[in-house]
Amino acid sequence: MAREYSTGFTPSWVVSLRPSEPQGSNLLITERQKSQIDIDRLACLLYTEQGVEMQRRILDVLQHDPVFDKGGNYFDSRIERFKTSVARAKRLHQLHQTHNWSEDELKWAIELIGEPTAFSLHWKGFLPTLQEQGTPEQHELFRRKAESMEIIGCYAQTELGHGSSVRKLETTATWNPDDRTFTLHSPHLTAAKWWVGTMGLCANHAMVMARLILNGKDYGPHPFLCQIRDLITHKPLDGVYVGDIGPKLGYNTVDNGFLFLNHVKIPHINMLAKFSRVDYETNVYIPPESPAMVYGTLTMLRAALVSESARNLARGITIAVRYCAVRRQCSDPDSEDKSAELQVLDYSMVQFRLFPLVAESFALNFTGQAMTDFYHDARTTLAIGQSNNGCGSSGQRAKALFSELHATSCGLKALATSAAADGLEVCRRACGGHGYSSFAGIGAIYMDYLPSQTYEGDNYVLAQQTANYLLKITLSVLKGDAPSNVTAKNLAAYVAKKHTPVHFDLDRDKDILAAFGWRAAYLTFDLLRRRDNDQRPKNDLLVDYSRLSSAHSQFLVLTSFHDKLNNPDTLSKIDPESLAVLWKLFRLYALTRVISASHEFYVSSALQVAEVVRADQETILWLLKEIRPHAVRLVDAWKLPDWMLDSSLGRYDGKVYEDLFHRASQLNPLNRLAMDPRPGSGERNRSGGDDAKSRL
Amino acid sequence: MAREYSTGFTPSWVVSLRPSEPQGSNLLITERQKSQIDIDRLACLLYTEQGVEMQRRILDVLQHDPVFDKGGNYFDSRIERFKTSVARAKRLHQLHQTHNWSEDELKWAIELIGEPTAFSLHWKGFLPTLQEQGTPEQHELFRRKAESMEIIGCYAQTELGHGSSVRKLETTATWNPDDRTFTLHSPHLTAAKWWVGTMGLCANHAMVMARLILNGKDYGPHPFLCQIRDLITHKPLDGVYVGDIGPKLGYNTVDNGFLFLNHVKIPHINMLAKFSRVDYETNVYIPPESPAMVYGTLTMLRAALVSESARNLARGITIAVRYCAVRRQCSDPDSEDKSAELQVLDYSMVQFRLFPLVAESFALNFTGQAMTDFYHDARTTLAIGQSNNGCGSSGQRAKALFSELHATSCGLKALATSAAADGLEVCRRACGGHGYSSFAGIGAIYMDYLPSQTYEGDNYVLAQQTANYLLKITLSVLKGDAPSNVTAKNLAAYVAKKHTPVHFDLDRDKDILAAFGWRAAYLTFDLLRRRDNDQRPKNDLLVDYSRLSSAHSQFLVLTSFHDKLNNPDTLSKIDPESLAVLWKLFRLYALTRVISASHEFYVSSALQVAEVVRADQETILWLLKEIRPHAVRLVDAWKLPDWMLDSSLGRYDGKVYEDLFHRASQLNPLNRLAMDPRPGSGERNRSGGDDAKSRL
Repeated sequence: MAREYSTGFTPSWVVSLRPSEPQGSNLLITERQKSQIDIDRLACLLYTEQGVEMQRRILDVLQHDPVFDKGGNYFDSRIERFKTSVARAKRLHQLHQTHNWSEDELKWAIELIGEPTAFSLHWKGFLPTLQEQGTPEQHELFRRKAESMEIIGCYAQTELGHGSSVRKLETTATWNPDDRTFTLHSPHLTAAKWWVGTMGLCANHAMVMARLILNGKDYGPHPFLCQIRDLITHKPLDGVYVGDIGPKLGYNTVDNGFLFLNHVKIPHINMLAKFSRVDYETNVYIPPESPAMVYGTLTMLRAALVSESARNLARGITIAVRYCAVRRQCSDPDSEDKSAELQVLDYSMVQFRLFPLVAESFALNFTGQAMTDFYHDARTTLAIGQSNNGCGSSGQRAKALFSELHATSCGLKALATSAAADGLEVCRRACGGHGYSSFAGIGAIYMDYLPSQTYEGDNYVLAQQTANYLLKITLSVLKGDAPSNVTAKNLAAYVAKKHTPVHFDLDRDKDILAAFGWRAAYLTFDLLRRRDNDQRPKNDLLVDYSRLSSAHSQFLVLTSFHDKLNNPDTLSKIDPESLAVLWKLFRLYALTRVISASHEFYVSSALQVAEVVRADQETILWLLKEIRPHAVRLVDAWKLPDWMLDSSLGRYDGKVYEDLFHRASQLNPLNRLAMDPRPGSGERNRSGGDDAKSRL
Repeated sequence: MAREYSTGFTPSWVVSLRPSEPQGSNLLITERQKSQIDIDRLACLLYTEQGVEMQRRILDVLQHDPVFDKGGNYFDSRIERFKTSVARAKRLHQLHQTHNWSEDELKWAIELIGEPTAFSLHWKGFLPTLQEQGTPEQHELFRRKAESMEIIGCYAQTELGHGSSVRKLETTATWNPDDRTFTLHSPHLTAAKWWVGTMGLCANHAMVMARLILNGKDYGPHPFLCQIRDLITHKPLDGVYVGDIGPKLGYNTVDNGFLFLNHVKIPHINMLAKFSRVDYETNVYIPPESPAMVYGTLTMLRAALVSESARNLARGITIAVRYCAVRRQCSDPDSEDKSAELQVLDYSMVQFRLFPLVAESFALNFTGQAMTDFYHDARTTLAIGQSNNGCGSSGQRAKALFSELHATSCGLKALATSAAADGLEVCRRACGGHGYSSFAGIGAIYMDYLPSQTYEGDNYVLAQQTANYLLKITLSVLKGDAPSNVTAKNLAAYVAKKHTPVHFDLDRDKDILAAFGWRAAYLTFDLLRRRDNDQRPKNDLLVDYSRLSSAHSQFLVLTSFHDKLNNPDTLSKIDPESLAVLWKLFRLYALTRVISASHEFYVSSALQVAEVVRADQETILWLLKEIRPHAVRLVDAWKLPDWMLDSSLGRYDGKVYEDLFHRASQLNPLNRLAMDPRPGSGERNRSGGDDAKSRL
C-alpha cells in the first residue's frame, strides 16, 4: 500500500529534494530482472498454496482496519502500546467470530499484525490446556465461556524463583476432603507466579500449575483453574494479589504478570482431570495412564516454534537483503573508477553474512514442515496401536516415534530459535547505522523474538534432553536393536563403518549430509565413552551435551532440507532453474556450518583441513556469486507484505530514504517538543527533583 | 544504598512473604568468603588508585542529586526520557563548573549516570574538533562560548545516504571570493546530515563536514562551523531544516538529528583552519602539512573505546555472575539428593559461558591501558622528532609508531566493541527468563552500546584498514627492513622459522601467546600470497581481511594481558594468590579463543587436533573449577556501584527477588491502569480508529 507523504511543516525547498541517483526503486527493479525465479511457485513451496491464499485474504481484512494501523507503534509509550494492544486483541476476537476464522487463520492474523497480542496466552496457553487436559464436563463448564471470552485466561506456571525446573515449583494445591476443595497457596515470595502472559491486567482466570498435596503427600505439579478477578468489576478477588511485572526488552504489548494466592479455595471440578485426578470419594490420587499424548502436544508446539523461527528470520533477511541492494557505499575495490559506489550487496563480506541466513530461513522452514509431517505419522501409528488396545508392534512403534520426536524436537527448537535470534541481529548489523533506527524494523522483531531462547524450555536445558536421548539410543544400537528412526539409523551406520577409513566429498551434496551425520554420531559415542568408561561427572560434560545436541540437530535440519529438495512433490512444483538455486543454498548453508564447527569434523575424521580450506576459499566464494543475482527474488518469495514488516529499509519498492525521512520529519512526535536547552534557562533545574525533570 | 520498600497497596499477607531459603544475601556473603582476592588492590590495577578515588568522589555527588534519580528510567516514554536527559545534561554542566571537574571527571560522571547524555556530542565531538582543528583566533571566537555552553554544538558528518564512506559526502561548501564566504548546501535528500547526536533538538551550532569547492574544483570534506538555531529563540535559522530522526533501539536520551542546508552562507573564519585552509587573498587552497597528529587524536578516541568496551562488558558480567550465584535451578546432576537446588553458577555450562567473559573484560581493559601508554610514547617520540624539525630518526620512528598505532587501533576497536556487545547478550541470556526484564539492567546497557559496532568506523570496514597495514608491513619485512614494532617483529619471527617445524605447548602461557602470533603471521602471508601471487580480486578476499584483522587483534589483546601480568608494577600491586587467578583467567581466555578459531591454528600448523581436544576437555574444565570460588570477587573488583548498574539481578547484596518484586508492584505505572478487557465492553471498539485505540 502506497504511503501518503504529508508535507506539513517541511519547507518547499526540502520537499523538492530527491535522493541522488541511482534511485532505490530502480535498483530493486533491476535486481528483480536479474533472476528468473518464480516467486509465486517458491512461496507455495514455503507455505503451501492454501497458506499463501490464506495470508493474502487475512492481510486484506487487517490492513484496512484502523484498529491495526501501525502509525504509532514506534513512537508510543508502553502504556499507550498496551492499550492499543488490548483494543487490537478485542478486535481480533470480533473478526475471529465474524469471519468464522479457523485456528490457523487466527494465527496468521496475529503474525501479520506483527506484535505479540495481549490475549496471546489466552489463545496459545489457556485454551489449549483446557481443551487437552479437561474432561468433557470441564469443557462444558469452562471451555465455551473461554471461547466466547467471558472467561479470559492465562497459563500460570513459571514462578519468581523457578523457571526451568517445573518440579521445584512452590505453589501448593492442598486437597480438603471435608468440603471437597483445593486450597491454592503461595508460601514464599519466590512462589509468586511470574512472567505469566495476559495475567498482569487482562485475565480473570488462571490455569495455575501447583503441587498437589493429598493426605500430606506431595504429588508434584498439576493444573488447577482459579478465578482471579471479578467478572463484572474486574477487581482481584479476595486472597489474590495480581499485577503486571513491568517493562521488558520487547513483548510490551503483552501484560506479563505476577500472582500471589493466599489460601484460595477452589472446587474439586477445577482440577483439570483428563490425565490424572483426585477421587473425591476415596481421597485417592489417580495417576495418568500414558504421557504419550502430552508429549505429542508439546512436540507440535515445538514444531510450530521451528517454523516460526524460519519466518522471523525471513523478516530480518528480507529487510537486510533489500536494503543492501539499495544502499551503496564506497567504490569497487577492484575497479579503477573510484567515482561510482558499489551496492553493499556486492561486497563478498556482506554476502557471506547474509546469504547463509537466506539459506537458513529455508532450511528451518522445511524442518518445521518435516516435524509436522512426522508428528501426524506418529499420531496415525498411535491410533492404530490404540485400536489394538495399545498392544502389538504399532503401539511400540508409536511409542518409539514419539520418544524420537519429543527428544529431537527439543534440540531442534534450541537450534532454530537461537539461529533465528542471532541471525536477526546479523541482519540488523548488516544494515549499518540505519539498522539501529526503530524504522529499520528489525530491532522490534528481534526484541519481541528474544524470549524464544527461554520459553518452552531454556535452550541449554532442552539440549540436555536431546543428548540424553541420543545416549540412550546409542546403548540400544550397541545392543543390536534394529534401528527404527533416522537417529538410530545414523548411529548404526557409524558403528558399521567406524573402523574403516571414511571419506566425504564436499562437492557432493549427499556426502556433505553424510559428513554431518558422521560428526553427530562420533560426538555421541565420544560422549558415551567419557560418561561411562571414564566415569566423568555429568556436570563436567554439560558443554559437550550442548554441542552434541547442536551437531545432531544440525544434521536433522540438513536432512530435512535435503529431503525436501529431493521430494518428487517439490520437483513437480518448481522449475529446474529455481531448484538449482535452492541446491546452491543447501550447499552454502552446509559448508558455512562446516567452517564454523570445523574442529568437530576434524576430530571425527570426517574431513581433512585441506578440504575445508578449499571449501572455504573456493566453493563458498563461487556459491555466493552464483546466488547473488537471485538474492532479492529469494527473499521476495517469503511474500512478507510491507504492512507486516513496517520497515523503511525493507520496502518492496526500495524507497528507503524517502520513507526514513517521512517518518522522522512527519510522524516523529519528539519534533513537536519546544525546548530551550541552554544551561542558564529554567532556574528550577538548580533545585533538582521532579520539578527539574518535568520542565526544561 | 539501601532501597526503601513502599508497601502502598500491597496486602499485609504479601508484605510478610520472604524468598524461600537460602536467601540471596547469604549466598553472596558465602561466595565472598570463599576467596581471598583483595578487590581494592585489583580495582587499582584496573583503574589506577586515582581512578578509583575519582569515581567514588563523583558517585557521591551524583547519587544524592535528585536530577539523577533513576526511578523513571525503565518506565518513561521516549519524550519523558529525553526531557530528563536534557535536565541531567544541564545539571552536569553546572556541576562541571561548580566542582571545576576535569575532562576525565566529567567522563566518569557521564559513565556513572549510565545513559548517553543529551549533550554528549557537544562534549565528545564538537568541542574536541574545535580545540584540535581550530586556529588560536577561532578558539578565541568560538571555544570559550562553547565551553560556557552559550554555543551548543554537534558534529555533523554522516549523511542519510553516506555512512562509512566519508569521501562520498554530498554536502558542499562553495567558496565565494567576492564576499569571502562559503555557501553550505544539501543538494539531495541523501545529502541530509543524519544521526548527528545533540542536533535533533539541542544544538544551536553544527560542525558540518562538507566538500570544499574552490574555483570549481572539489577538495573533499572539511569542517565548517555553521550556526543552525537562533541563540535566543532557539528557532532554526533561514535555510536550515533540522529535527530529530526518531526513536532508536537505544540511545533515546540523545536527540540524533537531521539537517538540511539551503545555500546557507557562513564567513571565512568558520572553516576550521589549523590543518588546511583557503587563503582569502589569493583564493588558493592550502593543504595540511602532516596527518600524523590527526591520526593521533583518532587513535586516542579508539583507545578510549577499547577501555569503554571493557567497562561495558564488566557491567553485564557483574550482573550475570552475581545473579547466577543467587539463582538456583534443578539439582546437581551428579548428586543422589534431588531435593536441593544447585546455584546456577555451579553448572559447567554456565561457567563456560561466563568466565571467559570475566577474563575478556580484564583483557580488554589492559589493552586499552596499553594503547594509551603506546600513544603517549609515540607523542614523546614525535615531540623529539619535531624539535629536530621533523627530520632524523625520531621523526621517522614517530611516523612508524603512529602508523602502527592507527592501524592496529582500527582492528582493536572492531574486536573490542564486537566482543563487548556480543558478550553483553551472552550475560543477559545467562540470566534466564529474568534477563529479559528491563529490571535486569543488561538490556538497556546492550541497546545503548550497540551503535559502537558502527560509530568511529564500521567494524567490518575498520578491519580492512588493519589488514591492509599488515600486508604493507609484510612487504617491508620481506624486503629485510628492521622490524620496529610488535607487529613487524612477529612477522619477522615467523619468516625466520616458517620452514622449520614449530611446536607450541598449551600448558605454557608464553607458548600460547606465541601460537596466537604464529597464526596471525601465517594468515598475513597467506593473504598476501593470494592477493599478489594468485592475483585474486580484493572483493574476493574481504572475508579473509576481516579474519586476519581479528586474528592479529586477538594476538595484541593477549599480548597486552600477558605483559600486564608480567609487569613489575603489577607484581608490586597485587598479592601472589590474586595474580595466580589472573593467570588462570589469561589461560582460560586464550584457550577458549583457540577452540572457537581452531581451524586457523590447524591451517597454520601452530597446533594439532589432539592438543586442542586436551585443552578443551581437560584444561578448560580445570580452569573453570579453579576460577569458580573467585568469580564473585573478580566482578566485585570492577567496583560498579548498584546506583550505576540499576539492576535487580546484579545487586551487591543479592536481594534479587525482593528488588524485582518491589519494582514490579510499587514502581510500575502500568498497574495503575484500570481496564476492562472484555470484548463486549467499550462499544466504540467496533467503529475502530483512534477512538478504539484510546479507550478500552
